[in-house]
Amino acid sequence: MTPMTTSKEIVILEEESVTLPKGFKAGGIHCGIKRKKLDLGYIVSEVPAVAAGVYTTNIFQAAPLLVTQESIAKENKVQAILVNSGNANACTGEQGLLDAFEMQKEFAYELGIMEHLVAVTSTGVIGELLPMDKLNAGIKQILQPEYENAANFKQAILTTDTCIKQIAVQVKIDGKTVSIGGAAKGSGMIHPNMATMLGFVTTDANIAYDDLLLALKEITNQTFNMITVDGDTSTNDMVLVMANGMAENNQLTKDHPDWDLFVDGFKVVCESLAKKIAKDGEGATKLIEVQVNGAYGSDAARAVGKAIISSNLVKTAIYGTDPNWGRIVSAIGYSGVPVEPNAIKVAIGPFLVFENGLPSPIVEEEVKEYLELETIQIFVELNQGKYSATAWGCDLTYDYVKINASYRT
Amino acid sequence: MTPMTTSKEIVILEEESVTLPKGFKAGGIHCGIKRKKLDLGYIVSEVPAVAAGVYTTNIFQAAPLLVTQESIAKENKVQAILVNSGNANACTGEQGLLDAFEMQKEFAYELGIMEHLVAVTSTGVIGELLPMDKLNAGIKQILQPEYENAANFKQAILTTDTCIKQIAVQVKIDGKTVSIGGAAKGSGMIHPNMATMLGFVTTDANIAYDDLLLALKEITNQTFNMITVDGDTSTNDMVLVMANGMAENNQLTKDHPDWDLFVDGFKVVCESLAKKIAKDGEGATKLIEVQVNGAYGSDAARAVGKAIISSNLVKTAIYGTDPNWGRIVSAIGYSGVPVEPNAIKVAIGPFLVFENGLPSPIVEEEVKEYLELETIQIFVELNQGKYSATAWGCDLTYDYVKINASYRT
Repeated sequence: MTPMTTSKEIVILEEESVTLPKGFKAGGIHCGIKRKKLDLGYIVSEVPAVAAGVYTTNIFQAAPLLVTQESIAKENKVQAILVNSGNANACTGEQGLLDAFEMQKEFAYELGIMEHLVAVTSTGVIGELLPMDKLNAGIKQILQPEYENAANFKQAILTTDTCIKQIAVQVKIDGKTVSIGGAAKGSGMIHPNMATMLGFVTTDANIAYDDLLLALKEITNQTFNMITVDGDTSTNDMVLVMANGMAENNQLTKDHPDWDLFVDGFKVVCESLAKKIAKDGEGATKLIEVQVNGAYGSDAARAVGKAIISSNLVKTAIYGTDPNWGRIVSAIGYSGVPVEPNAIKVAIGPFLVFENGLPSPIVEEEVKEYLELETIQIFVELNQGKYSATAWGCDLTYDYVKINASYRT
Repeated sequence: MTPMTTSKEIVILEEESVTLPKGFKAGGIHCGIKRKKLDLGYIVSEVPAVAAGVYTTNIFQAAPLLVTQESIAKENKVQAILVNSGNANACTGEQGLLDAFEMQKEFAYELGIMEHLVAVTSTGVIGELLPMDKLNAGIKQILQPEYENAANFKQAILTTDTCIKQIAVQVKIDGKTVSIGGAAKGSGMIHPNMATMLGFVTTDANIAYDDLLLALKEITNQTFNMITVDGDTSTNDMVLVMANGMAENNQLTKDHPDWDLFVDGFKVVCESLAKKIAKDGEGATKLIEVQVNGAYGSDAARAVGKAIISSNLVKTAIYGTDPNWGRIVSAIGYSGVPVEPNAIKVAIGPFLVFENGLPSPIVEEEVKEYLELETIQIFVELNQGKYSATAWGCDLTYDYVKINASYRT
């Protein structure tokens, strides 16, 4: 694929990911948590990287999240990330915590670095102890050169995902090429305020910690927190960003003239990963994008977008290519936002379906044809203000039920 | 079925409904909104009845709800209810309002009563105008004796429901038999704060309006507002209660010695109807009942119950007879209630599955066998206080997707 250049000179590289930025390597192996597929992966930076994270709001935070947050807090740096799939190490009590610390310690030992520079994370089934013998055997082998491969890493973090999620961008800052790369997993249990999703972003930018954290939080609110698959928020979600400074730009802060460019590039990475996760929702056949305009505030815009994208009735109607705009309008009505019914416009793709409190005349067959596409857009104009939000999700299908009725067995 | 007597002397009559109380009749016909099934029904009281209603919180309230609320407000009385199914008269603008008023006026004319004593309501597809010619023709015939039949009424209010929902109870108050009867419809779009559900309760009790309304609101919060099928809240929901006083008891108020008995009987009716709606959720194969105990407040107890009962992942796991307690725990964790993870106990039926922050040992096959039953109970002990709540819902199945992917077409 040819790199695409935007007006702000963000070069988008669809085939690249976490190893595009200078000084990062990644890899993955099969250690035996899953039957056959890769289940243990790593990202390592040549030097300690400034690191920021966002974590699930679920009260039952899984053990590795507790370990990782505590470790990052020591000096806001991470040099390596170790991820296993197939077992979430969640609801595993004291032993789960000990296991997460052991993962961290063993990998730090293999790398010859301080333990607190290793972030650990897990995804998969809840409530089972990690098979530490298999995991430790895997950790001992994983750094061997034959397993070093970004593709292996991207595979090793998946659970019910049907495809890898990756993206990278490059921007020029102080005449230096700064790269930002990302990889993610997530397919079910995806909902605003994080999901069973893991996101990893690497960059060789030189950046101040506080500003990196701020950017991550703002971007997460507009991207990863705006996707939903089924409304469940998981115990294990996190997004970690590592910035190792090897691009040698002048330190990025909010006052740097190219700050906005960096943030835009960072957002391109997160939005792309978020959309890929939404599109790969369990059993999904379509990506749904809801754009809300004219809200009286950001939160209101997001609330309306999330209500629509989370509606099982909207999701099934789109699966069935049924232009059932009434369900969209109904979702707006229960979003909790005091909208003005007669001021609202709703469009499904190019077709205006609701205006002045009434359905607009449509040729049903035309809208049905539009709903056959792989990406469906819903536009809502609230006419109450100037705020906007975009939310992404997917249709609800037979396969969603099939996958989730028998995940463990 | 033999009437069952509880310790408080509430006689439960499963085969009776809105016409058990003295002075009420009901009926229904096919007027042509639907292809074949009955689609227009009524309840009429011999005398004007004290009436109270609760209505959807959706901002897009359908036209008949506006008309009915306005009419009841005039003297807190209703003598007749007219319901059509197949068309919700929602999102139909000015014309929809005119149509709802016309329904009301035409039926009042047939009955020879004041217009504001007729409550009207509609359920079905959103955004299409009512076929007033068919409806008016139906209204002209519906009072003929051959259509007077409570069974007809209960059929005429259904949409995707697979069965009628009815119940009645009798209690003794001041030596008089007071009857309370109910009928309801609802199958999809069912969620706390009302649903695409209609509930009608009749009683021959003599009762003060303010107390009736208070009882209705409190009971609705514990029953109809605690059921969920798919998390969507509809534009058309309402529960109406009519009390015509023909039992000739001394007027019931909160100070009447038998007030609690009356409220208990009223609640039996509403809870029974609510559970029947949850069990008949679109595509459902099982009723799920979540009991939350030990919460620090009623709202907290309800929030935890609703989070669990609304989780698509819990619902699909139960459909698949998968004892995936991790999804229950995760739902508790994102309920918004600050629970204490290590204090919580979770049981699936008789099987304790989670305690002290850890899974409890279970024999997986035994729990799977339990999950084959038609009613599944989930018990949660939060150990934070003395408040409780119960929520009801259903499993999420292939058929839910099938029904909703093609409702209109």
